[in-house]
Amino acid sequence: MSKPTTPAESAQLKDIVAHAKEYGFVFQSSEIYDGLAAVYDYGPNGVELKNNLKRLWWEAMTQLHGNVVGIDAAIFMDPRTWEASGHVAGFNDPLIDNLDSKKRYRADVLIEEKAAEYEKAGDPARGAALTAEMGRLLTANDLAGVKQLIIDEKIVDPLSGSSKWTDVRQFNLMFSTQGSAVDSEAAPVYLRPETAQGIFVNFLNVQKSARMKIPFGIAQIGKAFRNEIVARQFIFRMREFEQMEMQFFVRPGTEGEWYDTWKAARRRFHEALGLPAAKLRFHDHDKLAHYAKAAVDIEYEFPFGFKEMEGIHSRGDFDLTQHQNLSRKKQQYFDNDIDETTGKPYGNYVPYVVETSVGADRLFLATLCEAFQEETITEGEGEAQTTKQRTFLKLHPAVAPIKAAIFPLVRKDGMPEKAQQIFDDLRFDFRLVIEDKDAIGKRYTRQDLIGTPFCIVVDGQTLEDDTVTVRHRDTREQTRMPISALRAYIGEAVSFKTVFAKL
Amino acid sequence: MSKPTTPAESAQLKDIVAHAKEYGFVFQSSEIYDGLAAVYDYGPNGVELKNNLKRLWWEAMTQLHGNVVGIDAAIFMDPRTWEASGHVAGFNDPLIDNLDSKKRYRADVLIEEKAAEYEKAGDPARGAALTAEMGRLLTANDLAGVKQLIIDEKIVDPLSGSSKWTDVRQFNLMFSTQGSAVDSEAAPVYLRPETAQGIFVNFLNVQKSARMKIPFGIAQIGKAFRNEIVARQFIFRMREFEQMEMQFFVRPGTEGEWYDTWKAARRRFHEALGLPAAKLRFHDHDKLAHYAKAAVDIEYEFPFGFKEMEGIHSRGDFDLTQHQNLSRKKQQYFDNDIDETTGKPYGNYVPYVVETSVGADRLFLATLCEAFQEETITEGEGEAQTTKQRTFLKLHPAVAPIKAAIFPLVRKDGMPEKAQQIFDDLRFDFRLVIEDKDAIGKRYTRQDLIGTPFCIVVDGQTLEDDTVTVRHRDTREQTRMPISALRAYIGEAVSFKTVFAKL
Repeated sequence: MSKPTTPAESAQLKDIVAHAKEYGFVFQSSEIYDGLAAVYDYGPNGVELKNNLKRLWWEAMTQLHGNVVGIDAAIFMDPRTWEASGHVAGFNDPLIDNLDSKKRYRADVLIEEKAAEYEKAGDPARGAALTAEMGRLLTANDLAGVKQLIIDEKIVDPLSGSSKWTDVRQFNLMFSTQGSAVDSEAAPVYLRPETAQGIFVNFLNVQKSARMKIPFGIAQIGKAFRNEIVARQFIFRMREFEQMEMQFFVRPGTEGEWYDTWKAARRRFHEALGLPAAKLRFHDHDKLAHYAKAAVDIEYEFPFGFKEMEGIHSRGDFDLTQHQNLSRKKQQYFDNDIDETTGKPYGNYVPYVVETSVGADRLFLATLCEAFQEETITEGEGEAQTTKQRTFLKLHPAVAPIKAAIFPLVRKDGMPEKAQQIFDDLRFDFRLVIEDKDAIGKRYTRQDLIGTPFCIVVDGQTLEDDTVTVRHRDTREQTRMPISALRAYIGEAVSFKTVFAKL
Repeated sequence: MSKPTTPAESAQLKDIVAHAKEYGFVFQSSEIYDGLAAVYDYGPNGVELKNNLKRLWWEAMTQLHGNVVGIDAAIFMDPRTWEASGHVAGFNDPLIDNLDSKKRYRADVLIEEKAAEYEKAGDPARGAALTAEMGRLLTANDLAGVKQLIIDEKIVDPLSGSSKWTDVRQFNLMFSTQGSAVDSEAAPVYLRPETAQGIFVNFLNVQKSARMKIPFGIAQIGKAFRNEIVARQFIFRMREFEQMEMQFFVRPGTEGEWYDTWKAARRRFHEALGLPAAKLRFHDHDKLAHYAKAAVDIEYEFPFGFKEMEGIHSRGDFDLTQHQNLSRKKQQYFDNDIDETTGKPYGNYVPYVVETSVGADRLFLATLCEAFQEETITEGEGEAQTTKQRTFLKLHPAVAPIKAAIFPLVRKDGMPEKAQQIFDDLRFDFRLVIEDKDAIGKRYTRQDLIGTPFCIVVDGQTLEDDTVTVRHRDTREQTRMPISALRAYIGEAVSFKTVFAKL
């Protein structure tokens, strides 16, 4: 149900990609070797922004909630984990190769594009029928039927126009690697395609060691890997990406209220961070995954349309039961709270799970897109009036890579030394940078481009009375204040508390 | 040159491993499936301790230094990266299989063990000669010669006593995975065996986007993977592990002074964190790696002897030059500082690199080993005198997983509500937990076992005058103070500034 991408919006994403590279937020991975497809590296400003977002999420989930704790499970897990979770059997894309162009496509995407053509041509019913038929065939795993549908619909390779296709076959999205150095017959080890299972297999370890009582949650941030056929839209869909997940374990029967609670809490988080309500929406899943009882996405309006940023899923006891069956180790919790209807403790059960799962890279991209601002500034009056364009990143100060830049007005008269003193005095508190080259206006511009909320100017007056001007990124207004006031003034503005207070 | 492990010391590591599991610091990975070898998961307390150590390192390296910035490069890199770095050709272990036991061994380790036997038996000269001969054969890549040495020395399988061996062959330690979903002929992609190359291939991206002037550093924290044959000593040597690396780019000729500077700075870091000077030592490498001009380890005295925790390496221009040659993209920096001997700018050059590389997991293990304390407490006087044992984790408050535990003395009279108020008031500032079960003494014990520096007790008097007792982990002393003083009192003790001030 995403909004179609218009040329103007594509251009805007292109601007953001270019900005991200030029100003040290995101680089193509291994760029000197012409780049690895669908993999990206975070640069000096990107890593700070991303770390701030990750830490903000982590503290919001764990530190603010007495009943949520964290873990950090390894990427390598016993391969049986992925049998239990259903990934070995079912985490597939239906692929087809064109014999002329030698290009490989997702068969379902080719058919969906054909359906979209019918819709565009004024025959939405035919488009819908085609999509439905494809869904039926895929559910039945009738891959020959999917190929026949492609032939019947005369679908051709978008590049070559050829209609010579291979058979459709299922392609598992999990990456795998050597299982062992010492045993050449060991089963391969997968790179985890999601972080969730690292939480499920540790459910009892965590519950017992941290003495948790249901309801309680386990949070985790970590890398996951998917061998995507269609990897595009910059860092939106990557082969290596990072998830921030929380699995909340509840008594069966209470999952509905917890689903609603977390759905609302997670949306509040994004709004507190500065994503406007009008650009966020809930999207209920039309078709539920095999493990899900209810599922909703929080979508953000990216330049390429409303797309999933976070998912909230009511997973029932699917995962714990699967691991219990395969590992033959009970995954149960003893609940000694009293059930009012029976007058007895609830006793042993496999808990139900409500999951919140947000892509760290997608939250990063949403934050960057939202922050990217272009405005026209009018200066002077009457005939002397001029206008100029300004680009700046209106990042929430709590997540901005650099909190303040210190500018000695000139590189002499003791101003550089004064700037260094301020740096040395405040560096234990927040991230600063000293900029001493070029005109002040140019220095403001550079800090605007990376979203630094404050610029501190050391000038002649500073040397006399120990005051500085503080220039504000968003308003371009300047305030004069004593150096001794900087720590509290900036510290308050950049504190995570400014976000937490809105949760 | 490590100290041999004595039984008592092994027992101590065993105690720490058991403690780490029971109190939620480290679990065997995929334990319900009987565990994946040499891979571990961090539990609720472990992840907080590890995150604190990582953030402390990160801020110490980047925030405190105006000339060090960070990046976060992907685990997946273009495979040519590892050709340039030398890992494809040379990152090998010489392996040999026993035909009877079907066990696989590192040939060099078998020979080293034989050499140690000679030494033990009073013939160190023969041991040294054997080691030297092995070194000569390996340097010449004479694997047949290595096998012959094993036969000549009558080395047998330690398990079966068999002397039937396969040939020796080189086994690359890099894990590899599918290169692409769309191109079945694409070269495999390696899981990076070190994070350093992610910094080198981004050298110019970072230098340009962040406008860095030499000397400057690039810091990174991230996972790396090695298919170790001999993986042991708990989290000391894992197949999946985390590195904290900084590459400092300098003008050729100045690398010596920067090597000394960083060597001293990194040791100060560990001492500031509380690792005692007597348990730290420098160990110069006897044999330098192909890329190194000088190399030293900072060793910590683990329960199994002095072992490498961090390495400082003077790498010259090896890596940048290799990438320049293979990518055919200049990896040069233009230095417009004036060379006093010529009166002209230094101009273009490939910078030299001084690297600091610490294992996050090793620093974690050192911190945990050092914190693990057992003491005998004497209570009462005269004939009523009793003694008891106390185990506690004397973690630096800045890295302790939980900063304060709040105990309502009893679960009534409004004490739980008061405890909750304190939690709600302080949770934006630091990580807290409320414990309301069992006797106070037992609650103290539990917090001691996970290293919580402060326990706050809400009692009858609290309800009258809003004061609480604060109990100190290390001294077990108690201080009465107003609730309103807690934020500043605890906040100061747990601040990273307490560590930074010693750097």
